[in-house]
Amino acid sequence: MTEREKMLAGKVYDACDAELLVDLNATKVRCQQYNNLVPTDIAARNSMLRDMLGRADADTFINQPFYCDYGKHIFLGKRFFANFGFTVLDEAYVTIGDDCFVGPHVHIYTACHSTDPRERNTRQEWAEPVSIGNNVWIGGSVVILPGVSIGDNCTIGAGSVVTHDIPANSIAVGNPARVIKDL
Amino acid sequence: MTEREKMLAGKVYDACDAELLVDLNATKVRCQQYNNLVPTDIAARNSMLRDMLGRADADTFINQPFYCDYGKHIFLGKRFFANFGFTVLDEAYVTIGDDCFVGPHVHIYTACHSTDPRERNTRQEWAEPVSIGNNVWIGGSVVILPGVSIGDNCTIGAGSVVTHDIPANSIAVGNPARVIKDL
Amino acid sequence: MTEREKMLAGKVYDACDAELLVDLNATKVRCQQYNNLVPTDIAARNSMLRDMLGRADADTFINQPFYCDYGKHIFLGKRFFANFGFTVLDEAYVTIGDDCFVGPHVHIYTACHSTDPRERNTRQEWAEPVSIGNNVWIGGSVVILPGVSIGDNCTIGAGSVVTHDIPANSIAVGNPARVIKDL
Repeated sequence: MTEREKMLAGKVYDACDAELLVDLNATKVRCQQYNNLVPTDIAARNSMLRDMLGRADADTFINQPFYCDYGKHIFLGKRFFANFGFTVLDEAYVTIGDDCFVGPHVHIYTACHSTDPRERNTRQEWAEPVSIGNNVWIGGSVVILPGVSIGDNCTIGAGSVVTHDIPANSIAVGNPARVIKDL
Repeated sequence: MTEREKMLAGKVYDACDAELLVDLNATKVRCQQYNNLVPTDIAARNSMLRDMLGRADADTFINQPFYCDYGKHIFLGKRFFANFGFTVLDEAYVTIGDDCFVGPHVHIYTACHSTDPRERNTRQEWAEPVSIGNNVWIGGSVVILPGVSIGDNCTIGAGSVVTHDIPANSIAVGNPARVIKDL
Repeated sequence: MTEREKMLAGKVYDACDAELLVDLNATKVRCQQYNNLVPTDIAARNSMLRDMLGRADADTFINQPFYCDYGKHIFLGKRFFANFGFTVLDEAYVTIGDDCFVGPHVHIYTACHSTDPRERNTRQEWAEPVSIGNNVWIGGSVVILPGVSIGDNCTIGAGSVVTHDIPANSIAVGNPARVIKDL
């Protein structure tokens, strides 16, 4: 397996792999270009997103600035909207359903390091996918951790840190996010 | 009532209203221009803020980058200082008193969606104003939710999420922010 | 003592001192230049960091954007990596050991204001240093408060707010961050 294949399969991989670094750097250049587009040039913005991301479509809308690692591992459903500062570390797949609203400064992480410093310092990493269902509202300043799934129809309150799965039809808030209401 | 009038009156409005979108986009262009000014060009920065915001004056200071939705619904008191990354979703009025200090990456939200996904997907939204008194220090990385009032002389600890009103003369911290001391 | 000497000694100083403001503004210009470099120009980025920071070396890597106040009060150990949005208010010294990994949008603060509004409004401030040991992983979206020390080999979970010292060999999470595991 290549390091990319290992990474996407959730296996330990070498984060200093030359091929991956080329790809990471290329995505950073494209994010910088995206962030420098004139905000009113909606067509150019949408075109770049459709080109960069694993899936986006004509009504995908992400306010600038936007930051991600690979882009092509991010799959967005229909009518996707994210506000300022959306940040996605897409070492693993990040899959978001239809009709999702993402507030400002939402950060989605998939990259994992060992908590054992000797292992961590070898630059061996792994990644765990994030999955968000349909009709989900992620409030502003929410952080979503590696491996988390959020079910359909959820609302995650602003400022929450989502460390565990959230079942469908829930409202969850806090650090760590806990379900406070079932719709 | 126009959609703008409904929005500012706290009523449900159509977030896809053409007139509002024109205004939102124009503000995003101006924020990008503000963020690209040379930081030492204090006069140009101040001039843009006074032009963009509902109220600002000769000693208003906001470090770049700064993000907002309309700008003209933000009213800042005298000697206002905000550090990097100040973000204000000013669908409703955001009013801040004199002598307020705002740390880096403070996010103020007024925009609300229904937690019922069927209602949310109609793009009908509403907004609730945020009010901050005089002599308030908002610590870094604080999130302030729609409808919150923070009284005079308060300190909000760094990293707090302010979900409810904070009475005057309080120190509040945490997620959700709770008063830990009365001055 | 000059105001800078007072600031670095942890004494109350005048935050409106002309010499300090010149330095603050110069650093903001350099951060803006750093953030505008083409991400793939690794050599230029590294060169700017080595020039700006108190200590950095050939393998220091900080993803753009990066924000700081002075730069020269930040001392980074070997093989330092920080992801997007690293923000450091280095009014006091910020010292980070070897082999540290810093996730996206990590904010380190040293600047302090009085919680008494009359004192605060005099613009008299002070600063407390932050110290991070070797082999530390600071997760994404972590906030570190003035005066905090984090010992060797620690992991700070994503979204934590670190308000107190964390002893070596700990895993700490939450707001406020609490030790949940001793390695």
